[in-house]
Amino acid sequence: MTSPEQHDRMANAIRFLSMDAVEKANSGHPGLPMGMADVATVLFTKYLNFDPKQPHWPNRDRFVLSAGHGSMLLYSLLYLTGYPDMSIEDIKNFRQLGYKTAGHPEYGHATGIETTTGPLGQGIANSVGMAIAERKLREEFGPDLLDHYTYVIAGDGCLMEGVSQEAIALAGHLKLNKLIVFWDNNSITIDGAVSLSDSTDQVARFKAVHWNTIEVDGHDQAAVAAAIEAAQKSDRPTLIACKTIIGFGAPNKQGTHKVHGNPLGADEIAATREALNWDAEAFTVPADILEAWRKAGTRSAETITAWEGRLAASDKKAEFTRRFAGELPPGFDAAISEYKKKLAETKPTVATRKASEDALEVINGFLPETLGGSADLTPSNNTKTSQMRSITPTDFSGRYMHYGIREHGMAAAMNGISLHGGLIPYGGGFLIFSDYCRPPIRLASLMGIRVIHVLTHDSIGLGEDGPTHQPVEQLAALRAVPNLMVFRPADATETAECWQIAITTPNRPSGLALTRQNLSTVRTEYSEKNLSAKGAYTLAGSDDAKVTIFASGSEVEIAIAARTTLEGKGISTRVVSVPCTELFFEQPEAYRNAVLGKSPVKIAVEAAVREGWDAFIGPEGTFIGMKSFGASGPYKELYKHFGITAEAVVAAAEAKL
Amino acid sequence: MTSPEQHDRMANAIRFLSMDAVEKANSGHPGLPMGMADVATVLFTKYLNFDPKQPHWPNRDRFVLSAGHGSMLLYSLLYLTGYPDMSIEDIKNFRQLGYKTAGHPEYGHATGIETTTGPLGQGIANSVGMAIAERKLREEFGPDLLDHYTYVIAGDGCLMEGVSQEAIALAGHLKLNKLIVFWDNNSITIDGAVSLSDSTDQVARFKAVHWNTIEVDGHDQAAVAAAIEAAQKSDRPTLIACKTIIGFGAPNKQGTHKVHGNPLGADEIAATREALNWDAEAFTVPADILEAWRKAGTRSAETITAWEGRLAASDKKAEFTRRFAGELPPGFDAAISEYKKKLAETKPTVATRKASEDALEVINGFLPETLGGSADLTPSNNTKTSQMRSITPTDFSGRYMHYGIREHGMAAAMNGISLHGGLIPYGGGFLIFSDYCRPPIRLASLMGIRVIHVLTHDSIGLGEDGPTHQPVEQLAALRAVPNLMVFRPADATETAECWQIAITTPNRPSGLALTRQNLSTVRTEYSEKNLSAKGAYTLAGSDDAKVTIFASGSEVEIAIAARTTLEGKGISTRVVSVPCTELFFEQPEAYRNAVLGKSPVKIAVEAAVREGWDAFIGPEGTFIGMKSFGASGPYKELYKHFGITAEAVVAAAEAKL
Repeated sequence: MTSPEQHDRMANAIRFLSMDAVEKANSGHPGLPMGMADVATVLFTKYLNFDPKQPHWPNRDRFVLSAGHGSMLLYSLLYLTGYPDMSIEDIKNFRQLGYKTAGHPEYGHATGIETTTGPLGQGIANSVGMAIAERKLREEFGPDLLDHYTYVIAGDGCLMEGVSQEAIALAGHLKLNKLIVFWDNNSITIDGAVSLSDSTDQVARFKAVHWNTIEVDGHDQAAVAAAIEAAQKSDRPTLIACKTIIGFGAPNKQGTHKVHGNPLGADEIAATREALNWDAEAFTVPADILEAWRKAGTRSAETITAWEGRLAASDKKAEFTRRFAGELPPGFDAAISEYKKKLAETKPTVATRKASEDALEVINGFLPETLGGSADLTPSNNTKTSQMRSITPTDFSGRYMHYGIREHGMAAAMNGISLHGGLIPYGGGFLIFSDYCRPPIRLASLMGIRVIHVLTHDSIGLGEDGPTHQPVEQLAALRAVPNLMVFRPADATETAECWQIAITTPNRPSGLALTRQNLSTVRTEYSEKNLSAKGAYTLAGSDDAKVTIFASGSEVEIAIAARTTLEGKGISTRVVSVPCTELFFEQPEAYRNAVLGKSPVKIAVEAAVREGWDAFIGPEGTFIGMKSFGASGPYKELYKHFGITAEAVVAAAEAKL
Repeated sequence: MTSPEQHDRMANAIRFLSMDAVEKANSGHPGLPMGMADVATVLFTKYLNFDPKQPHWPNRDRFVLSAGHGSMLLYSLLYLTGYPDMSIEDIKNFRQLGYKTAGHPEYGHATGIETTTGPLGQGIANSVGMAIAERKLREEFGPDLLDHYTYVIAGDGCLMEGVSQEAIALAGHLKLNKLIVFWDNNSITIDGAVSLSDSTDQVARFKAVHWNTIEVDGHDQAAVAAAIEAAQKSDRPTLIACKTIIGFGAPNKQGTHKVHGNPLGADEIAATREALNWDAEAFTVPADILEAWRKAGTRSAETITAWEGRLAASDKKAEFTRRFAGELPPGFDAAISEYKKKLAETKPTVATRKASEDALEVINGFLPETLGGSADLTPSNNTKTSQMRSITPTDFSGRYMHYGIREHGMAAAMNGISLHGGLIPYGGGFLIFSDYCRPPIRLASLMGIRVIHVLTHDSIGLGEDGPTHQPVEQLAALRAVPNLMVFRPADATETAECWQIAITTPNRPSGLALTRQNLSTVRTEYSEKNLSAKGAYTLAGSDDAKVTIFASGSEVEIAIAARTTLEGKGISTRVVSVPCTELFFEQPEAYRNAVLGKSPVKIAVEAAVREGWDAFIGPEGTFIGMKSFGASGPYKELYKHFGITAEAVVAAAEAKL
């Protein structure tokens, strides 16, 4: 055990870096870093297995600051333990443009930031995914190569957000015993006391989902250390409830919501320096303390050397290394091409959700790293292929996750799985319920990670379930998210192509919007090239056509039927299939202009709202789609009722000409 | 107590109507109605205070089928108890276009449907809002006028969704003792056994948030009745965990996931008729059973008469009646006009979140029915005005809700408050966290109810908190929702106007996107007319201008500045303020065309993604806004960094000319 005095000074280094950085920025949250400095000091100096010089070591313990507003805690730790890319200049420029020290921790800004946090509850849910990945890969590669803990600091906000319930219920069910969550139990939120809005017995709540729970004084280093050691031995995930004083050390403000999200002010900082007996200048850490911290950052060096020896000796080295590099084995594209060849021959009439299953059958057969799952819609999402046995609490040899009716928790866990490395997660849900998991979808897009959402039942085409289940605005809402690839394939071939793009793009998340209802094949000729990769392309007709019809997914066959009628009437018509608007708008201008074309009549058809389609057809163009929510009834009747038919397209074209 | 045989036959009437309707539709969920028929029979024949002939009686008990996929349970109950607008024809045409019996219960389709359910967890969270409204109005009008229970049937899915945790934690905290939830504990989900994905001890979980809990056999009518009576006397909300057999009565399929969401098939229906000794034809209820049900529907007639007497004698009659009619008191518009006059004089430079507080100061002073609140961002959302004291578990005389860090639960509770009647709920959050509560925002839009979301910190203008907190796609994503009014006012006057529209539109929800940063007044002249009501209007310049700049919110002052420069260079420029795109696109074509105009150069400016703006400027127009996620830094630097400046607008205009 570090001497109490030494411990206090090390923890105070975090406190002063944090309060001084917030003060200089005149913005930020000093309360959490000051309150949790003791816990973090014990964890980082005694237990966390990590090496700032080898931040990507696959078997490092993961540390997630779920309460991301306390970012200065993490930045302080990274600087103090010696991460080379976290300098004192970064700390001094907290929350300034162009520095790594953003208001909330941003994955990719600096090593040691394992995930982007800030939207509350996301970090703890990511950590469940990391623990799932660890457990799964430990099963696959053995504990010699993969066997680490995942530590989390969560605040009251994280625990109030509903996603935390989904996450902890899943973790408890799966007995993820290497997951250890510190709850910063400081009884304060932005509005004031937690008791203004909540009186949850958090310990009882975690017990109800079968967690091990330990309660400690978060300022007692020995108690925290004992709790971590007990947690490490538990056969279940552990909540360590740490009773803390927010803003610990600030004599006049600690324990109140004034220290949560505001600078302390010069006077209070001076008072804190006095109270904690700290005479170092702002942004200066006394040499002996910095040295002690830097030494803590070297604790795992021997462990890593031993691990490297085991990896070098392992017959799984090549596969392990490939998987953690996120690289695909050679031959993947060829396998997809082979499959596409078959489709061009068979020309199936099939729902794209089923076509997705067929594509996954090829993909999952080829790639051992895919980890499938669904939010309790397995038979509807068609996400479980022949290779996939279910993972259970006692058997992680399978590759399929029953995430439960927890879209939000699933999506956040998938982010954690992807961030952990070694696996490519995909998960199924209804497109409508993407609304339940937009925060993690957004964060995956912001982080630039490979997470794949299988979003079936993508329009009124689902029929009788009615407007609560029929997406009309979800496509537009998802397409608005920067960096997210939203695919809406028109047939089995496009579905295979969209899957190919999703799998082969390591730095972007994807969503595949898929039909419940059968669609005919519109891509009747084999093309080795992935035509969907440019986002939109001419499927039929020539550039000088009088009419151009843009359509996606299930409406492409309507566009094709309309074209047949129009051409029969002597009206030249071009059909553009638009499987991915994002990718299309990223193409060079010349390509975009060529696809948009110069037809005097432009029509877009999609069984969804118009928003977004003006970028193709302009305000003067005609949109055939939804102007309202849907209705309950057989889908063919609905398409007629809402006027999304080939006849309507023909009539619109003729009216304009 | 009804005789066991009579009870069984009454419950079986629900079972057969449900299974026959699902069979005829060849679509739907027979499992829940069959499993929960006993519980529902006890509740509707003995305890629920309601009258099918007076479905809008304000003091009726509310019944919410949170597990909305079991819609045939509700439709059967409405038909059996004698709601005049639920005919056997409707039952026969379950899930058919044009009938009231949609796949999931749709508010407004038939009386007795208290809320639209289907997206899981929403109903239980709505019910918390209903119970809040009841408790608040009981405080205000006294138990003689308002004093009822709210009953809920929730399934495993409802309880797995995270929103349920937010809802039950809030209900437990507030001690909403007239809220009674039946959990259909049937151990089955779509994927199979609940144990595939969950092992939550639900009773312990509810206890952890201070609920009263009772466990019963859901097929034992006496036990269910005793549980309801105990629950009615509790000083806390009650969970009645009902152990049931899903699809009860179907001899070969009950208790399995096969009966959850699929028709039973002719053979199994025949077997069920035999097993339950039911020889009536499909859609025929034996006369004595129908009569018994109809009689149950008349139980509350005398209670209502007595209540009407009390209302007639009450000095609060006029106010009570007005409030439940959802009508505003006379003079509201005049009060807003008065306030706008003052603004035209003072021309404040103020953040629109602060301007919203100022408008609310007027509104809350005038309307006693507003119920404010925030998801723990009160000092940031500026939602608590001088009239609003906090509601606490023991004191509901205040008008302000501390919803906690629970955006999803808050939005769903606000739906319930609005649906209950008598109150106009508004609640604050950051615009970015609208992503956490899209499902209830969507449902409010689908139902057409008055719920107002105060969404502050609406762009990169929030500055240092960085990309996790800076909305870029949320405006587009919300504008895509049919029927939702998304406002983004440019100054204090527009803010007041947008509030006026939100308050005076009883059948639509609103979201007000508001800035953290100060904005100058752009509406310098007083106008009695609400210029924001048409969604977009010419703020400056003439129709024949060479350049038209469209902008919303904080970017309108940028557009005005650009216009000044351009006009100085002899380039005629018009500025169109766009506080609400939805309302604009609902205007007559002539108005729309006039506002869109014929300027050769069209530019749109919004610190958000382009999606949606092509409807104003076309693909050829220039968009000045965000092409990516934001960044952490002082907001003025961010505006420069991302090129959203008057200079950029001027340069774009000149480049095009």
